[in-house]
Amino acid sequence: MTGGTQEAGRVWAHVGQAFAEWEYDVVVVGAGRMGTACALFLRRLAPGLRLLLVERGGLPNEEGATILAPGVWTALDVPPGREREAAWVRAALERDFGDVTFQTRALLELHAGEGEGHVPTADLLAHFPEAAGLLDPAALPWTRLDGEAATYRPGAVALACGQGAVRVGADLLLNTHAHLTPGGVRLDRLTVTNTHQIVTHETHELRAGVVVVAMGADGPHAAEHDLGVHTAHGRAYRQTPRLNTASSDRTPLLRAGGLTLRPQHGGFTLIPPIHHRDPHGYLPGGGRLTGVPVGVRRETLEDLIRLMDALPPLATEALEVGHSLADVPGAWLALPGGRTETPPVHQRLTDGVHLLLGGPLADTLGLAVASDLAAQIAGVRERPWE
Amino acid sequence: MTGGTQEAGRVWAHVGQAFAEWEYDVVVVGAGRMGTACALFLRRLAPGLRLLLVERGGLPNEEGATILAPGVWTALDVPPGREREAAWVRAALERDFGDVTFQTRALLELHAGEGEGHVPTADLLAHFPEAAGLLDPAALPWTRLDGEAATYRPGAVALACGQGAVRVGADLLLNTHAHLTPGGVRLDRLTVTNTHQIVTHETHELRAGVVVVAMGADGPHAAEHDLGVHTAHGRAYRQTPRLNTASSDRTPLLRAGGLTLRPQHGGFTLIPPIHHRDPHGYLPGGGRLTGVPVGVRRETLEDLIRLMDALPPLATEALEVGHSLADVPGAWLALPGGRTETPPVHQRLTDGVHLLLGGPLADTLGLAVASDLAAQIAGVRERPWE
Repeated sequence: MTGGTQEAGRVWAHVGQAFAEWEYDVVVVGAGRMGTACALFLRRLAPGLRLLLVERGGLPNEEGATILAPGVWTALDVPPGREREAAWVRAALERDFGDVTFQTRALLELHAGEGEGHVPTADLLAHFPEAAGLLDPAALPWTRLDGEAATYRPGAVALACGQGAVRVGADLLLNTHAHLTPGGVRLDRLTVTNTHQIVTHETHELRAGVVVVAMGADGPHAAEHDLGVHTAHGRAYRQTPRLNTASSDRTPLLRAGGLTLRPQHGGFTLIPPIHHRDPHGYLPGGGRLTGVPVGVRRETLEDLIRLMDALPPLATEALEVGHSLADVPGAWLALPGGRTETPPVHQRLTDGVHLLLGGPLADTLGLAVASDLAAQIAGVRERPWE
Repeated sequence: MTGGTQEAGRVWAHVGQAFAEWEYDVVVVGAGRMGTACALFLRRLAPGLRLLLVERGGLPNEEGATILAPGVWTALDVPPGREREAAWVRAALERDFGDVTFQTRALLELHAGEGEGHVPTADLLAHFPEAAGLLDPAALPWTRLDGEAATYRPGAVALACGQGAVRVGADLLLNTHAHLTPGGVRLDRLTVTNTHQIVTHETHELRAGVVVVAMGADGPHAAEHDLGVHTAHGRAYRQTPRLNTASSDRTPLLRAGGLTLRPQHGGFTLIPPIHHRDPHGYLPGGGRLTGVPVGVRRETLEDLIRLMDALPPLATEALEVGHSLADVPGAWLALPGGRTETPPVHQRLTDGVHLLLGGPLADTLGLAVASDLAAQIAGVRERPWE
């Protein structure tokens, strides 16, 4: 792939496949949902650009935040002024990426007190009988309803975007750790030894006019470590424990005290609030519940305990807190600007190097920000939501 | 000491001094500034109560937050409605505890933008020439002035309160680790072995009608571990690096971006802002400055770097960041309610057991809250600031 044709790109999945390239116009580092979307949109806007997408693991990385992202689109999460972008993201998710298990699903944001646009929770439960056993309407008598929220699988979106990017001519290099260098990237192609150690099989220096750093929570560290560019971004370790209370396609999303209950696989995935970034050097560890070690970090346990009266199933054995950290899915989440409610961003690090960060609002706005960076790199002024 | 006389109490400093008591009316655990003040006020209000003050280290504990507390009283830190208490604390600090190096000293809170009560920084610098070299008035052109702020040594206050409490009849047991038990405390009297290990020499079970848990940031953990009472309090590790730029008795306190520069020992002690609690299990560690390991944690480094343009001495060798964590003084600070701007509090844990927490605003309100708890235990309705 050296020109602007629409032939499919090449894929190097393992070190047995020889990689001998030395120059690209654009290298996108990271095949999570932000990087794959940026690669796909960029190849569509500028088919003449030779583009390589590099990923440390598979597509998408099973250790990254994309796989564990909630996949909850809701207008309640859209910051003022970003409504059109969010609406475009919702339509794209529903329409453009094949089967990403997209499903319109109401979201009930439950409150203890009355507020603007709140309706009595008891009235709503008549329309959502599946939610009745999940909450105590006396504790949470008011609800803000988003009838047009939706759920989907972010991992499926990343897979569709990555495959789509290859289909329109992007090259894809998997199992490769990329380091940022002046004017390009250094690629460590990884392999697994007989003793199950991951080692570098070979190293390439690659020139690239533009590099997009889409490494999730690792991106700001790479910017500082590899390029010496200090950023204000942070990260937080978020776990998403499971609640084995029955759910169906008709069960609404519930949110209370910042905790979201997302119907999934016949039960619920719990998405706890993020209160602030974690300090540098923090190693996640399990907490204790009445003296017994569990796999959920302490701060998340406190949030769950606080809600046990209002959401009674949390106080039952349906809540899977595990025995050690490995029992509960969790991932590092980027916090743009070090804050918890900042939308996804892209940011110029040095000449030709852009940082692309998803973070807590990537479900609702990530595709739009990836699209915006792609358009900027392609020199295109129009945005699809305008 | 078994009655209500005004004879001095007894002091057990080491395990060579036999301790054979088995019952007190009140045991105060922790001889930091909150515990010692509570003990002193309580003995004054209720001289009939047999009171024991227990401390794990010396008086005050050299590892605790009291010794490293800034000792900055300022009306700018007083929450609405707490003005009379704060004024009483200021007067008490100036008058009641002997030489605590109390000194009225202006505080200049520097801002980039105009706001209510702000005056031009350049105008103020004419009155505070000592501050001129410390800041760039172009970066921080507006100032909110507290002309009646004050500095003092919290460690000296704790020492004076502890000694004062003994003088009016409180007993004092040092080098003793107290555990909360139903109806009292278990005391582990500590000693040091030939090989410099700290070990328990002997254990006592003590009955007490009232226990005051004044263990600083360790208090909430003791409440949960010993009593099974979960609290919402948090903690944060705060370091106070030194800035070796000359200061004198006339140098004002400066504050910018949440960082306070406190003139001390001919230079400055830096008191960084606390943005949020640290997660459970966090172990403080040094950060890196342009790749070089330093003794200041990463979050504090970021705060200092952000202010280097506005406060130029921070960008010089006058800033002591050390090489490892041990080079920079630091202590765990209690955060009442898990938040950073909550005043000191006392809270009933179970029958007869009270938690007493200082935290970030203890310099301005700590004595009042200790006094309030003492009055409550003594059954006295009046408060000295009313």
